[in-house]
Amino acid sequence: MALHVNRQVTLAARPVGFPKHSDFALVESLVPEPGPGEVLVRAHYLSVDPYQRGRMSEARSYAKPVQLGEVMTAQAAGEVVESKDPRFAPGEHVVGQLGWQEYAATRAGTLRQVPDGIPLQWSLHVLGTNGLTAYFGLFDVARPKPGDTVVVSAAAGGVGQVVGQLARIAGCRTVGIAGGPDKVRQLTETFGYDEAIDYKNEEVDAALKDACPDGVDVYFDNVGGEITDAVFRRLALGARIAVCGQISQYNLTEPELAPRNLGALIVFRARAEGFLITDFAHRFGEALPRLARWLAKGRIRHTEDIVEGIEHTPEAFLRVLLGENRGKQLVKLGPD
Amino acid sequence: MALHVNRQVTLAARPVGFPKHSDFALVESLVPEPGPGEVLVRAHYLSVDPYQRGRMSEARSYAKPVQLGEVMTAQAAGEVVESKDPRFAPGEHVVGQLGWQEYAATRAGTLRQVPDGIPLQWSLHVLGTNGLTAYFGLFDVARPKPGDTVVVSAAAGGVGQVVGQLARIAGCRTVGIAGGPDKVRQLTETFGYDEAIDYKNEEVDAALKDACPDGVDVYFDNVGGEITDAVFRRLALGARIAVCGQISQYNLTEPELAPRNLGALIVFRARAEGFLITDFAHRFGEALPRLARWLAKGRIRHTEDIVEGIEHTPEAFLRVLLGENRGKQLVKLGPD
Repeated sequence: MALHVNRQVTLAARPVGFPKHSDFALVESLVPEPGPGEVLVRAHYLSVDPYQRGRMSEARSYAKPVQLGEVMTAQAAGEVVESKDPRFAPGEHVVGQLGWQEYAATRAGTLRQVPDGIPLQWSLHVLGTNGLTAYFGLFDVARPKPGDTVVVSAAAGGVGQVVGQLARIAGCRTVGIAGGPDKVRQLTETFGYDEAIDYKNEEVDAALKDACPDGVDVYFDNVGGEITDAVFRRLALGARIAVCGQISQYNLTEPELAPRNLGALIVFRARAEGFLITDFAHRFGEALPRLARWLAKGRIRHTEDIVEGIEHTPEAFLRVLLGENRGKQLVKLGPD
Repeated sequence: MALHVNRQVTLAARPVGFPKHSDFALVESLVPEPGPGEVLVRAHYLSVDPYQRGRMSEARSYAKPVQLGEVMTAQAAGEVVESKDPRFAPGEHVVGQLGWQEYAATRAGTLRQVPDGIPLQWSLHVLGTNGLTAYFGLFDVARPKPGDTVVVSAAAGGVGQVVGQLARIAGCRTVGIAGGPDKVRQLTETFGYDEAIDYKNEEVDAALKDACPDGVDVYFDNVGGEITDAVFRRLALGARIAVCGQISQYNLTEPELAPRNLGALIVFRARAEGFLITDFAHRFGEALPRLARWLAKGRIRHTEDIVEGIEHTPEAFLRVLLGENRGKQLVKLGPD
């Protein structure tokens, strides 16, 4: 193994504003030797997610930034090649924070086994971080009640598509917001949203008023910015806002100025709460079997947007930041 | 009674920006006759509160605006003059939403009795709306734990002075923010705040960093604006923000633009929640005896700023909006 080449995507420069291809580098190193208690994994799928933009910046956040020259942090799913820990054996499927690279040696305790019979790539979205983010953000942070009107931004994305379907399972009416006619059609036809709003081609304030005549009881916010401003103007009394992501803000060089909105929380006696999926790690064992059951029953449908070849990872990432992906963005690595 | 004169302060014009004396009128009418089920009350004290600025505006809010020519809405405390309801008898002390006027006839069910032995004016602050706002906003909305660092803005005001002392009773460390050396001295010397910040004479970011080295666990926000922005930059993980008032915003003609702050809720996994004291009316019976007990034991101290004569009510209100009051602002009415 040790003489094989390991291709990696590293952070070459800290982006200013919207990232460029040249902010990344494709480098080669040797496949690492796993140390005691470590496992060597060959990745089959790399995950591409908006939060990675935050890790490219030195601004204060919930996690340390990736250093220049370091492999970009990312979830990946693959198979065990070599194990120095009794919990894992070669050939088993695992998922973990392995980075954008073909091979990673990592401590066994940071890996999660992927059961046989589940397509490996699902462990990176609907049966992984995206599904878990939807589950805990909706059920534990927003806490919908049957009959609530639940609005989801970036509703066709990896997290948003699951949120809408979980809200329906919880007896809610769902309104998805996405950009462009393709995605909006997907919202109602594939993901079962009751109403869909195309923020690129509709006036969001008016569309929200039509779609939510009694106001917005729950808002699952993936985007922030002006879409979120519009939702704040339509909150129902006692509304709950789960603040999951703010993708509209990630590529700004200066903080965007906007009308203050804390006053709306008083008017509507509303609650806005931010969360990170890692804080719920101790309860993944509760959520994953439920998500798997709903998947098996066809109550959760999902879409993947797969790019092939590690060299296309930066491009896939830029597509996600532009909203050009159709469903969960993944990079599939070749068999060798 | 019916031929006595009732002096009233009405809304003469909708203020644009900061209110002026001429936005109010002092008018005379006849003392009303109470109808069946009504009680005629002669007010001894009128309450003056920042929220009244909202009622002067037609902007969408949680309550209807006062109409032009109508008596300004306000709490008042006084004595029953005549009762057409068996629950109240002449001479008894009551508090209710009676408006800025000397006499009011009101449905008996909207009044609350003030027990003998309690100074009547306390029912308008520490044993009334201010104390109740502090109690439910802190204990039910922010939910502090012993050891938490609790920051309060407008900490010397009618609500803020009680919040700090309730937080100490709950085992918290308290940091008060107020404007000017007099108020700041009062925060530590009278109201027992552990630390006090003078936002008019200190750099709030630096002062918060010194006062809250481990971050802000609970923020009780009465003011909004730049002070709140500074607190958002110092939140601790899992912070809770009780959004009670936004006095910095009430007199603006255009919404103030500011850096968006929902992203901070993710970084700190924080919760911001607005509330109105009226939503807790069914639990006032829980809070009032506790507040009375803490008062009796000297665990809650309080200050009043009393102006005499109904004709000075608008002036007292403008002082509150300017932060010139020292403690809870009240207007005392003459004996006749």
